[in-house]
Amino acid sequence: MGGDNAPSVEVEGAVVAAREFGIPITLVGDTERLRQELGKHNVQGLDILLHHASEVVGMHDAASDAVRRKKDSSVRVAFELLKNGAADAVVSAGNSGATMAAGMFVLKRLKGIDRPAIAQIFPTLRGKTLVLDVGGNVDCKPIHLVQFAIMGEVYARHVMGVEQPRVGLLSNGEEDSKGNELTRETNSILKNISFDYIGYVEGRDIFNGVVDVVVCDGFVGNVVLKLSEGLAEAVGKMLKDEIKQSFLSKLGYLFSRKAFSNFKKKVDYAEYGGAPLLGINGVAMICHGGSNVKAIKNAIVFANDYVRKGVNQRLAEKLETEFTMYMQQGNVRESVAG
Amino acid sequence: MGGDNAPSVEVEGAVVAAREFGIPITLVGDTERLRQELGKHNVQGLDILLHHASEVVGMHDAASDAVRRKKDSSVRVAFELLKNGAADAVVSAGNSGATMAAGMFVLKRLKGIDRPAIAQIFPTLRGKTLVLDVGGNVDCKPIHLVQFAIMGEVYARHVMGVEQPRVGLLSNGEEDSKGNELTRETNSILKNISFDYIGYVEGRDIFNGVVDVVVCDGFVGNVVLKLSEGLAEAVGKMLKDEIKQSFLSKLGYLFSRKAFSNFKKKVDYAEYGGAPLLGINGVAMICHGGSNVKAIKNAIVFANDYVRKGVNQRLAEKLETEFTMYMQQGNVRESVAG
Repeated sequence: MGGDNAPSVEVEGAVVAAREFGIPITLVGDTERLRQELGKHNVQGLDILLHHASEVVGMHDAASDAVRRKKDSSVRVAFELLKNGAADAVVSAGNSGATMAAGMFVLKRLKGIDRPAIAQIFPTLRGKTLVLDVGGNVDCKPIHLVQFAIMGEVYARHVMGVEQPRVGLLSNGEEDSKGNELTRETNSILKNISFDYIGYVEGRDIFNGVVDVVVCDGFVGNVVLKLSEGLAEAVGKMLKDEIKQSFLSKLGYLFSRKAFSNFKKKVDYAEYGGAPLLGINGVAMICHGGSNVKAIKNAIVFANDYVRKGVNQRLAEKLETEFTMYMQQGNVRESVAG
Repeated sequence: MGGDNAPSVEVEGAVVAAREFGIPITLVGDTERLRQELGKHNVQGLDILLHHASEVVGMHDAASDAVRRKKDSSVRVAFELLKNGAADAVVSAGNSGATMAAGMFVLKRLKGIDRPAIAQIFPTLRGKTLVLDVGGNVDCKPIHLVQFAIMGEVYARHVMGVEQPRVGLLSNGEEDSKGNELTRETNSILKNISFDYIGYVEGRDIFNGVVDVVVCDGFVGNVVLKLSEGLAEAVGKMLKDEIKQSFLSKLGYLFSRKAFSNFKKKVDYAEYGGAPLLGINGVAMICHGGSNVKAIKNAIVFANDYVRKGVNQRLAEKLETEFTMYMQQGNVRESVAG
């Protein structure tokens, strides 16, 4: 109920996912409005249930307060369904901070994790890069970034299938002397951890594919995420404007149309659906507030896949063993305390 | 001497600027190496002087320490020349933090400014957006961001010619409840200032042109800058890869070539040369470490223009009167103290 175009886009995305992939869906929210939206589609034979929730956490609400206060908000009720076994995953296009807070509040965190992180996959020249956190954790301590790094490394290895993931810390320069207070302390802790930590990386490294995992706080990560979408869009528009300037280049565009649409598919965030919320006891996908139908559908498909493959279970196990190992190696608690 | 490809690119850029625009240049650095580089070019009739400086601040050096320690570093000596009237502007592709520190140390700051800022112009769908700070000030207090906002507003009005510049504060969401500790306090101060402050903006807003000035700390701004360059480059490459997939689209590309090159010109950072350093008593342009010849040339041309038009003088006057006015309106000192 909390997305920018809720619930029409969410309902349509769910209908498409149910129709095309046979995924059973429970829509959580104001059932009267949900029924109205469902009435616009042919839902015959689809496995779609409605579950009432009387409240909504808005984009303007302060996340964790709202989740605690609004006991009957759609996002909180959705996580309750997961907790009670009535659902296997939560997909939300509402306030991402609230989705994180609700997931944490209802499902609890994985052992060793202080703060869950939203992990977004970016397309690059060589493949894909996982960036975390891209929202939620706006004011972080070094220990949080260290935990994000470990979660990202485990995720890249066990879910993205990267044999030895290279992990970088986002900064304003590659040299150890660069960075701010937060990154400098995080950098020195990560250097003592045995995975493939390559040190600071810069903004450009997200897209050239030199690392598999990029770690940053949620404020910076969110700026990165929205900037990337905005820029990819702007670049496409600017290029089209240029092409429209002459008949010849318009003709050329007709011939290259397929290439343009393939490219668009590659950078379109909707293709990636949502971003997994790592560090909680359950599967949750966080979508953009402004998600379109395709993005919602893809997030549902991804979440379904995630559950069927037992990804979160495997991730939790790996995190528990490897996290403990990494944290001991890095003498993290001591470093932070010191 | 401090750029990634120094001094060959710097010398060639200076030679081109001197040849094409008749701009008098003083090259500051190891004169033996500079003479060697100059020997590769036809410099007959060009107004190029050499000034020796025995030390270099490297990219790995901690900026302000290095500037204080290395009294005979090229960047510091260059600012001394400006101070003594032997030069009108400094152009540097070295360590940007060191350039800022040297400018501040040698020339001093404008009245009311605690920290100078590097202001970068970004191309957008509608025109241009000024983003500051894009480097140097990695750990900021609200008062610094407020000063950046005022400098940016005055610069947009008096240099970029925007009648009533719209100023936004970069955040992870538009709502006042979003942001981190730094932006939330800055946001509440800026709301009390009488210029056109529109509140929080997001990463995507830099390129859609809804604001003329975007304010952020130097850590975030630097990530934004390098991400934008990297992404624009990656997008171009991805599109070319797609086009190469078929004969037809390759043919189409031939017809659209001009549009592609116009587009490339629009997003190529080298066209913008460098970024002005705002808030010091003098003109300085900061270029990328990896600048090419065109970028260096354009930065020199821009700096020359800037000096001839008396921009910095006007900016200093405007800043002095308007800064005081704005600061009083916002009750800034009190807000910060409280």
